[in-house]
Amino acid sequence: MIERLETHVFETVAILGAGLIGSSIARACEASGAAKSVLIYDANEAVRERAKKIALGSICETVEEACTDADLVILCTPVGMIETAAKAASPFLKAGAILSDVGSVKASALNDMLAVAPSYAHVIAGHPIAGTEHSGPDAGFAKLFSGRWCILTPLEDQDEAYQLATAKLTKFWEAFGSTVEIMTAKRHDLVLAITSHLPHLIAYNICATAEDMEQVTEGEVVKFSAGGFRDFTRIAASDPTMWRDVFLNNKEAVLETLGRFTEDLAALQRAIRWSDGDQLFELFTRARSIRKSVIEAGQDTAAPNFGRRNQEDDTPAE
Amino acid sequence: MIERLETHVFETVAILGAGLIGSSIARACEASGAAKSVLIYDANEAVRERAKKIALGSICETVEEACTDADLVILCTPVGMIETAAKAASPFLKAGAILSDVGSVKASALNDMLAVAPSYAHVIAGHPIAGTEHSGPDAGFAKLFSGRWCILTPLEDQDEAYQLATAKLTKFWEAFGSTVEIMTAKRHDLVLAITSHLPHLIAYNICATAEDMEQVTEGEVVKFSAGGFRDFTRIAASDPTMWRDVFLNNKEAVLETLGRFTEDLAALQRAIRWSDGDQLFELFTRARSIRKSVIEAGQDTAAPNFGRRNQEDDTPAE
Ligand SMILES: NC(=O)c1ccc[n+]([C@@H]2O[C@H](COP(=O)([O-])OP(=O)(O)OC[C@H]3O[C@@H](n4cnc5c(N)ncnc54)[C@H](OP(=O)(O)O)[C@@H]3O)[C@@H](O)[C@H]2O)c1
Ligand SMILES: NC(=O)c1ccc[n+]([C@@H]2O[C@H](COP(=O)([O-])OP(=O)(O)OC[C@H]3O[C@@H](n4cnc5c(N)ncnc54)[C@H](OP(=O)(O)O)[C@@H]3O)[C@@H](O)[C@H]2O)c1
Repeated sequence: MIERLETHVFETVAILGAGLIGSSIARACEASGAAKSVLIYDANEAVRERAKKIALGSICETVEEACTDADLVILCTPVGMIETAAKAASPFLKAGAILSDVGSVKASALNDMLAVAPSYAHVIAGHPIAGTEHSGPDAGFAKLFSGRWCILTPLEDQDEAYQLATAKLTKFWEAFGSTVEIMTAKRHDLVLAITSHLPHLIAYNICATAEDMEQVTEGEVVKFSAGGFRDFTRIAASDPTMWRDVFLNNKEAVLETLGRFTEDLAALQRAIRWSDGDQLFELFTRARSIRKSVIEAGQDTAAPNFGRRNQEDDTPAE
Repeated sequence: MIERLETHVFETVAILGAGLIGSSIARACEASGAAKSVLIYDANEAVRERAKKIALGSICETVEEACTDADLVILCTPVGMIETAAKAASPFLKAGAILSDVGSVKASALNDMLAVAPSYAHVIAGHPIAGTEHSGPDAGFAKLFSGRWCILTPLEDQDEAYQLATAKLTKFWEAFGSTVEIMTAKRHDLVLAITSHLPHLIAYNICATAEDMEQVTEGEVVKFSAGGFRDFTRIAASDPTMWRDVFLNNKEAVLETLGRFTEDLAALQRAIRWSDGDQLFELFTRARSIRKSVIEAGQDTAAPNFGRRNQEDDTPAE
């Protein structure tokens, strides 16, 4: 699904952070021709070494080297490191350069970038709704973003140059096979709180509960995990640093969503305790209708087995 | 993975309830030769008609017709209908026949069967840890049980005939490629409460919460469901009747497990509210280790994308 462009979108793209997302962007640039040259920097020396070994592109030893000529600098670090990375990049941004990111939380990332970026650069935050539970430079692949949404949260009421920059960044993601959606950072953080952050929190929590159930040996929980629990463990296999940063930086929306979840769960608990079969049936039927909508929206297939084929055809998302 | 047996395990097997599980057993009998003849009855006329149309086997018009000659009668109805089905079958059980089931809760099913079965029949409850989110006779397939666990919960301290019957039922499931595990009904219900029932309850609940979030249009929740939520909707696509019955019949273990889950969630909520990054990181890291155990136990693969291939190779479980 990645077609080669006839002309690049950007001459030079700098990627700071060569993990799952950064290395996937590097590979997608290569596959699509969206950038003429890609310069990669990672704060972790071992990651830089590994990135060289697997020939990810031009690996730089300093932020300066990566950013000086870049038309787009894209921060691919955990959300908690966006401030640090933006600070490191800012002195080297050229006039008209775009400073963007891929962080799973947008309001905090946007603020962190705006606080340090020079006025002659365009700050446009972004978030590809694509990922896997793996991290690091080896986990990335070019097609990760293909057929997926990418949300951009540009500032409102900006000049023409900024709007042109947003259009270019849109083109860049489209070159990877993504569909770009524009919304405010605040709205992004609320939508993602329910579609991504809460599900991850719940998955982590159920794993903790399972571990703590002393009457049941861990061996048995694991042994019979195919009953549903297994699917939660996959979600909970995601990187702890990344997710810690997500929850610390989207506190308000996550707590609001979690509050609703807890209220709903209390009602379910009551229905079970009082053997209210009708209420259970009604609620389970409603939940099913959301599944139907997900399938109709093409976000999953109705085939059993998660409707997933192999990584070549289809990829899970963050 | 289903090899043809040289000799049948049973002459005649009666299946009551021709849905996902019942029709899969019929197909697996056919593929493995575990039964010489398979007689199928379903209380729902439309299901019987459909089963005839797709040539599932010998479809009977009455329970009597199905059960009179059967060496094994296996109840494949929702848990709430096991009592009714057992009552219907009991008058026709021959001496030495096995009365079994596949219900997702075992103590209640076992009691329901024991209450009505004649003393000359052997009641042995069972539960294959295999399934999909679909129901009905069309959803079944022969390989559903292949490479999966099947838990049997025979009564303790029984005579030799009973033990022989248990050994035969074990062989029957092994013929489908399952590995049989023996435990008490009570233990089954506790283990499954955490590995299956709680995950389903949580998945249903998060779907309800998502639906209720009015500030976020349903369209957006569905649109960006690939961020994690999608995977919960699949689990919540399961049959409402089946799951209502599970929760009504495994109340005690589910409420106990849910209580622990809620406590753990409150602690997580507090950690987020107080920005306790270390606690989040520590908990997320622990959760990850359970994932590692699941993979090491061969219950899932480390490949991203749920490690699932297609239905031919690998199947999801209940
Ligand atoms: N994983 C997903 O499914 C997914 C999906 C969409 C968006 N995202 C977002 O994408 C971002 C990256 O996630 P990821 O999964 O790619 O993480 P990852 O695989 O852990 O990669 C992040 C890389 O950034 C490096 N890094 C940390 N601080 C840095 C700095 N100041 N300058 C340069 N490099 C630095 C890290 O080095 P160390 O190894 O030393 O930390 C690491 O190599 C996160 O903000 C996440 O929220 C993730
Ligand atoms: N689905 C899974 O993943 C899974 C996995 C393991 C075990 N189980 C257990 O397996 C059992 C069956 O589940 P399933 O998914 O196969 O359900 P299903 O597809 O809904 O099939 C159940 C069938 O039984 C019929 N039935 C109801 N009462 C009956 C009676 N008294 N006599 C004869 N037939 C009757 C139903 O008719 P109607 O359509 O009229 O109700 C339906 O056709 C449940 O106890 C469940 O807990 C399910």
